[in-house]
Amino acid sequence: MPLIVEKYGGTSVGTTERIHAVADRVTRAHQAGEDLVVVVSAMAGETNRLLDLARAIDPKADAREIDVLVSTGEQVTIALLTMALHNRQIEARSYTGGQVRILTDNVHGKARILDIDADSVRADIAQRNVVVIAGFQGVDESGNITTLGRGGSDTTAVAMAAALQADECRIYTDVDGVYTADPAIVPEARRLDHITVEEMLELSSLGAKVLQTRSVEFAGKYKVPLRVVSSFEDGPGTLITHEVKDMEQPLIAGIAYNRNEAKLTIRGIPDQPGVASKIFGRISQAHLNVDMIIQNVAQDDTTDLTFTVNRSEYADARKILDSVAVDLGAREVAGDDQLAKISVVGVGMRSHAGIATTMFEAMATEGINIELISTSEIKISIGVADRYVELAVRALHKAFGLEVNTTEESLDSAIAVQAAQTDR
Amino acid sequence: MPLIVEKYGGTSVGTTERIHAVADRVTRAHQAGEDLVVVVSAMAGETNRLLDLARAIDPKADAREIDVLVSTGEQVTIALLTMALHNRQIEARSYTGGQVRILTDNVHGKARILDIDADSVRADIAQRNVVVIAGFQGVDESGNITTLGRGGSDTTAVAMAAALQADECRIYTDVDGVYTADPAIVPEARRLDHITVEEMLELSSLGAKVLQTRSVEFAGKYKVPLRVVSSFEDGPGTLITHEVKDMEQPLIAGIAYNRNEAKLTIRGIPDQPGVASKIFGRISQAHLNVDMIIQNVAQDDTTDLTFTVNRSEYADARKILDSVAVDLGAREVAGDDQLAKISVVGVGMRSHAGIATTMFEAMATEGINIELISTSEIKISIGVADRYVELAVRALHKAFGLEVNTTEESLDSAIAVQAAQTDR
Repeated sequence: MPLIVEKYGGTSVGTTERIHAVADRVTRAHQAGEDLVVVVSAMAGETNRLLDLARAIDPKADAREIDVLVSTGEQVTIALLTMALHNRQIEARSYTGGQVRILTDNVHGKARILDIDADSVRADIAQRNVVVIAGFQGVDESGNITTLGRGGSDTTAVAMAAALQADECRIYTDVDGVYTADPAIVPEARRLDHITVEEMLELSSLGAKVLQTRSVEFAGKYKVPLRVVSSFEDGPGTLITHEVKDMEQPLIAGIAYNRNEAKLTIRGIPDQPGVASKIFGRISQAHLNVDMIIQNVAQDDTTDLTFTVNRSEYADARKILDSVAVDLGAREVAGDDQLAKISVVGVGMRSHAGIATTMFEAMATEGINIELISTSEIKISIGVADRYVELAVRALHKAFGLEVNTTEESLDSAIAVQAAQTDR
Repeated sequence: MPLIVEKYGGTSVGTTERIHAVADRVTRAHQAGEDLVVVVSAMAGETNRLLDLARAIDPKADAREIDVLVSTGEQVTIALLTMALHNRQIEARSYTGGQVRILTDNVHGKARILDIDADSVRADIAQRNVVVIAGFQGVDESGNITTLGRGGSDTTAVAMAAALQADECRIYTDVDGVYTADPAIVPEARRLDHITVEEMLELSSLGAKVLQTRSVEFAGKYKVPLRVVSSFEDGPGTLITHEVKDMEQPLIAGIAYNRNEAKLTIRGIPDQPGVASKIFGRISQAHLNVDMIIQNVAQDDTTDLTFTVNRSEYADARKILDSVAVDLGAREVAGDDQLAKISVVGVGMRSHAGIATTMFEAMATEGINIELISTSEIKISIGVADRYVELAVRALHKAFGLEVNTTEESLDSAIAVQAAQTDR
């Protein structure tokens, strides 16, 4: 019998009615012959309610106690869903993260899974019991409750699927799959039938909030077949694949954006070894996360360095950079906290030089100034002023012809068309 | 340093403000040099909120899953109180029942504590950490979450005090001690400075809801010095003692009542061996709890039998009795579901025959008909019509002179006075 790990997020279990609906869906799958492990999040709003309580006690509450507190959210859901399954004559059993035992390190609030002892879960499955597991949580070696951080339920599901060698891990969510772009911005955006792990990773890390980055990494590492489906309507969703099938693979999977960016530039730095490490050493000591880094070609024995940080960390980063600039004898520091990052992602671009050209020309046509460029093997990201986001994403979606199911071949012509237009 | 186990109930931790107040109190005790283990209940209303969710899913939900659900209530409180202590620069650490490890049997919803492994708690105390423990919960041998039933947090506190050989177990509650009678009925009711375990047991089982019966049994068995104190005002409360100090010991500790009683009588039963077991066998098969049983002296080879049950079980018991009466060839079945039980409790009465007389005469003076009498070594209970409860309790409080601190000596004269009055 196929073993399926399903995961339902907070919205899907947000009310007792919705928990009943999830129980109906699980019951149908069980009756259709599937063995099921169901991972659930806290009911929507519950985690925030608990965090509000913590804030009323101490805004700087200890991470260990925060974990003790918020882990109750998922514990409530597993009990309720298991009751709903019993109510449908389905044998079911709930497990907290600690009961499974999902062993993590002891970094409270963003723990990493080290090992899963799935013996009891396997024994339950062998008896055709449905197993309901609290997502997002585990225990460290001393038995302290840990959490994996927001969205960690996806990681729990994928990790359970890997530990159990499940046939598929289905992430039920409030969207019906992964799209070529945010449908709120691009009405023509199209659901992808499949996408590679690498593409999904780039999209996740760029802020497409369908799946948590870590869960996709996990799926990639352990080759877990992962599918994103809607918990509100039936449909095939999007399958995250591990093998690239040549001709069917679209050149570009999609376009992602992230509005919460800021850029900082330090100009006229003496072009000497060790300069970059001095700058980023100070930045990382302050626990600030740097995203893109661009160093310009040196002129007159000095160089310019630009990097981006999350908008909320802009002020802190700026303060550090001002001080570092003095130490290094740099000329000046400049910055802009109204930056957005837009990325075109696709494994097919590895072998296609035309992608960047098409991207930059689409921006030029719309009169959008590109402030930053950064590329990886399967991604090209640009920084533009925040106010251009919608315009830029729509223009790129059109330029790459994503509204139709483009294969390499068809996209080659689309790029050719673009190139021809801009050649004029 | 004295080791104190404190327990705060749901009302005492009902809001974040009240949790702050508890943290203040714990901080003062800690700074005064006490080592502290604090057991807490769920915030008032939380357990009912969770049970309402369960009811919306399945009114006949599985007991194991109910325990998974409701145990989150205390888990929230331990996290919040520990945060509040950190906020006051007190080193503190929270433990769920499973983390301590409080081992119970697997009777979900009313599990019994089998063993406590308090090693980690001891290690924390040795470092002057305050330990905050979730009341009401434990784990069975397989790691399933269990609960001790409503009011079980008292039991957790007393069991922890026994396991740690604490110097005192203080139960903080919304009353400032144990009274000679319900102050709502008897304005002159007086707080007792101390009461024996046996008396407290009788009072608890009779419905004086200050302490859960099981926690008092535990305190008696393990000789835990137990004190009931108010969490809203300072005061000595009532100490539950294990030794009777002769002269200072009052003859009567207090007067308890329970309104939810019903009586059933089966008349004209053939007076043969095995009759009682036939009747009560059937009653207990139906899981009905019988309280008082009185068998009258046989007349004409037949006997009458009367017993009391909880009012909510009256109809079921009556149905069974009607059927048993036919089988036994008994004459008739009668019943009354508007009965109340009033009890006079005191270890001192062991050696005093006058107590019953004083009690019955006080009822006669008020024109209250006694429908049932049952006695134990330290208690005399009577059944009266429900509408007489207030009048009867007040009359007894006065008859035994409980408004003043009566010792054996002074009460002897009080009884003498009563006897003299009724002799007239």
